[in-house]
Amino acid sequence: MQFTAQEISLLLNGTVEGDAFVKVDRLAKIEEGDTGSLTFLANPKYEQFLYTTNASIVIVNNDLQLTAPVKATLIRVENAYSAFTVLLEKYNTVKLNKQGVEQPSFIHPTAQIGENVYIGAFAYIGPNAKVGNYSKIYPNTYIADNVTVGNNVTLFAGVKIYFDCVLGDNVVIHAGAVIGSDGFGFAPNPDGTYNKISQIGNVIIEDDVEVGANTAIDRATMGSTIIRKGAKIDNLVQIAHNVEIGAHTVIAGQAGISGSTKIGEKVLIAGQVGIAGHLNIANGTQLSAQAGINSSISEEGKAWGGSPYMPYKDYLRAHSKLRKLPDLDKKVYELEKLIEELRNGNPAK
Amino acid sequence: MQFTAQEISLLLNGTVEGDAFVKVDRLAKIEEGDTGSLTFLANPKYEQFLYTTNASIVIVNNDLQLTAPVKATLIRVENAYSAFTVLLEKYNTVKLNKQGVEQPSFIHPTAQIGENVYIGAFAYIGPNAKVGNYSKIYPNTYIADNVTVGNNVTLFAGVKIYFDCVLGDNVVIHAGAVIGSDGFGFAPNPDGTYNKISQIGNVIIEDDVEVGANTAIDRATMGSTIIRKGAKIDNLVQIAHNVEIGAHTVIAGQAGISGSTKIGEKVLIAGQVGIAGHLNIANGTQLSAQAGINSSISEEGKAWGGSPYMPYKDYLRAHSKLRKLPDLDKKVYELEKLIEELRNGNPAK
Amino acid sequence: MQFTAQEISLLLNGTVEGDAFVKVDRLAKIEEGDTGSLTFLANPKYEQFLYTTNASIVIVNNDLQLTAPVKATLIRVENAYSAFTVLLEKYNTVKLNKQGVEQPSFIHPTAQIGENVYIGAFAYIGPNAKVGNYSKIYPNTYIADNVTVGNNVTLFAGVKIYFDCVLGDNVVIHAGAVIGSDGFGFAPNPDGTYNKISQIGNVIIEDDVEVGANTAIDRATMGSTIIRKGAKIDNLVQIAHNVEIGAHTVIAGQAGISGSTKIGEKVLIAGQVGIAGHLNIANGTQLSAQAGINSSISEEGKAWGGSPYMPYKDYLRAHSKLRKLPDLDKKVYELEKLIEELRNGNPAK
Repeated sequence: MQFTAQEISLLLNGTVEGDAFVKVDRLAKIEEGDTGSLTFLANPKYEQFLYTTNASIVIVNNDLQLTAPVKATLIRVENAYSAFTVLLEKYNTVKLNKQGVEQPSFIHPTAQIGENVYIGAFAYIGPNAKVGNYSKIYPNTYIADNVTVGNNVTLFAGVKIYFDCVLGDNVVIHAGAVIGSDGFGFAPNPDGTYNKISQIGNVIIEDDVEVGANTAIDRATMGSTIIRKGAKIDNLVQIAHNVEIGAHTVIAGQAGISGSTKIGEKVLIAGQVGIAGHLNIANGTQLSAQAGINSSISEEGKAWGGSPYMPYKDYLRAHSKLRKLPDLDKKVYELEKLIEELRNGNPAK
Repeated sequence: MQFTAQEISLLLNGTVEGDAFVKVDRLAKIEEGDTGSLTFLANPKYEQFLYTTNASIVIVNNDLQLTAPVKATLIRVENAYSAFTVLLEKYNTVKLNKQGVEQPSFIHPTAQIGENVYIGAFAYIGPNAKVGNYSKIYPNTYIADNVTVGNNVTLFAGVKIYFDCVLGDNVVIHAGAVIGSDGFGFAPNPDGTYNKISQIGNVIIEDDVEVGANTAIDRATMGSTIIRKGAKIDNLVQIAHNVEIGAHTVIAGQAGISGSTKIGEKVLIAGQVGIAGHLNIANGTQLSAQAGINSSISEEGKAWGGSPYMPYKDYLRAHSKLRKLPDLDKKVYELEKLIEELRNGNPAK
Repeated sequence: MQFTAQEISLLLNGTVEGDAFVKVDRLAKIEEGDTGSLTFLANPKYEQFLYTTNASIVIVNNDLQLTAPVKATLIRVENAYSAFTVLLEKYNTVKLNKQGVEQPSFIHPTAQIGENVYIGAFAYIGPNAKVGNYSKIYPNTYIADNVTVGNNVTLFAGVKIYFDCVLGDNVVIHAGAVIGSDGFGFAPNPDGTYNKISQIGNVIIEDDVEVGANTAIDRATMGSTIIRKGAKIDNLVQIAHNVEIGAHTVIAGQAGISGSTKIGEKVLIAGQVGIAGHLNIANGTQLSAQAGINSSISEEGKAWGGSPYMPYKDYLRAHSKLRKLPDLDKKVYELEKLIEELRNGNPAK
């Protein structure tokens, strides 16, 4: 699809400067813009590119003062960045605007499917499963028995949801993620072998949660593993059984949370962090990348780092000294010899 | 399905106290039990909940003495915990009791399929593959050419098994796991590019092994990557080519084992542990979370931690001092000045 | 398929010693060879096995001098190892020689499919997607709208490629890998909730790249996440949005690269390494397992280790002292007391 500068300006309530009929069909960064693309200038640091860009249209702030001639058509708006975000979202909505049921797909006769849904080929919707209105179930996705999927949910290709799990509205789950696999529970026998403990709970994912590609969230042994409203979880994250993730908490790639741990609200967990089981992590906690958390954190809003973890500032200070530990070791050895000399009555240089 | 207290009591060889005809249709924790649910009391710590629970039935030990009135129907048994485990397992067996072949699925004419199997829609069973009796192949699962799957195996949705791999009996593999992908083997050329080394071996998974969601187990270059009987592997674990995992070894989430390493029996590997290639790890070894193992461990049954690893006790002691390393550094600097003063003949305070 | 010693010898331009008509149908390591298998001897360390192996054929170097009788038929060649590699590759080519379109599969009418392709059952090829000649799309694979797949590409079972992504020639992607999932981008609101930032870029994978099982490569916010020619990426690796991986760079299992970081050419990244966002890593850098990289590396070709990272040699030295930090701490305490004594005029032993 192509749009003219005039059409876009109307949408953004802006003012056109230059050729109002120039057409664009894609969005670009200002340093990469070429003919047919639309870009924006918000950060003054990038202003130089405004005068050299080959983009056909640039969205700029109303108060921008030009210091050289500009080839592109400008659209002036109150806030160039947020105007551009509006276009980004519109663009993506169009891109992902799928509807209808592709064949072959498998929809069990007892499943309930809402209105205006997309169900891709090779998607599987099991007995008594429910899919809400405007939800998109991409190809090769598996929704097991008794699963409830809310309205306006997107499950990208190859997502697998085990039986009895519940997803709220506006949930987005990326390709390959697994929701509701068995918790890792085995009872040891005296001879060192293990008996499986059946995992009969489920996973509840509340509204507005996003889950990344190939992430795994295990079902509870009993009760529910819960991801609260608005939490954002990146790719390849491991969430074990009976964990609870608080509202609006963010978990970056490859982090892992062990069983029965309860993470508070608005916690920030960086990449590759590991958190042991049966802990409580206070609201607003910030954990830096690769941190290892082996005890509960009760004080809210503090930053921590290292493995085992310590206050983030201590972590930075300690590790800056770690590299010089061999020098310190050597110096102590030398001081020991000097003291020995002093104690032997030979203090002179 | 609903069951009465009397029916459950008969199954567990117990005694009913209270309404024998009250019905339940689900299991719950005692602190979360509501009308229609069955729970249990084994740990005296939770006895308080017995008098307040809304669960309809509670399984208790024969010798429990009540100290207050109880609303729920009780079923008295010799061991409440193990009786409840029996119910958990029965519940899950019913939940997962699928049979028959759903359509469309792909079963190659040369494949051999046992009796009483479940084969979900969009499952793929390739040329000369064998699937044993009572095995369950969930939707969107891929079983390649010449793969052998034993009896009573469960492959959850979207599992992929590459050609020539062999799975024993009672194996459980969770959704999205990949078995038999190429080992990561490339021969460097003088110009810094790489040639792929073909990986023609396979993966052998022995009886009673469980593999977690989205775990990857690579095929051997030649010969076999082997997972021995009874090993339990969690989600998102990486097992490289030609690795051998000993019987009844447990590997927690996001751990990684590099190529040709041999792990002994009954080893415990915690989450996010990394083990380098071509090592031997002795039977009964215990590795704490995020440990980094860069040399073989020959002594059996010892605990280790840290990266690079050290004896677990040393690891705890060393890291407790690490945080105070800046203070130690400062103190040594001060001592150095004092010694200097002493050597200059100025020892007085 | 079975081959005689004579047939194989012709292929390798070798000389047969022994029964030229003995048949083999598989390859093996010399210590594991049994009747019907072919193996090789290149490393003199393994020469003992030559005299005991049950393999039917052994490829050896022209200049090998026998010191005892050999049961197997020998094929003498200039270089036994590289001759065997040729057989490995031929063997695998035969194994993976699939062609044709299996049913049911989903190929959108607007998709363009090359010649001599394999398209497995339950594979999905979306609107305007292109698949080149001799490419193999295994079962349950998802190729979204407008994706371009080059010639001679292999996508193993269950690979998912999101819309607009571009794959060059000879690319191999292992089962379960996800290409083009949304970057992890959310704009915080004043109340601590998040708004999603639409991710409208794509992923470009150049020629000769290999991607491991269950790896995730996110699409760019705008522009492209780029994997340059010849890069090799292992299993369960996380590559975030707008990352660029240089040509012939190698990334081992479970490593993670955060958003907008640019990795140079011929970099070696070991397992479980984490690299923060918006960094530049110089060509030829070597990062040891579990390293944590929190700042850019501008010097080419250097080795680093630890988290936070330091020069590899410093890392080894520092960590060898870390274990003895409690002893050092104790010694400093003792020296402090001795100094105190000296300062109090009591230096005698």
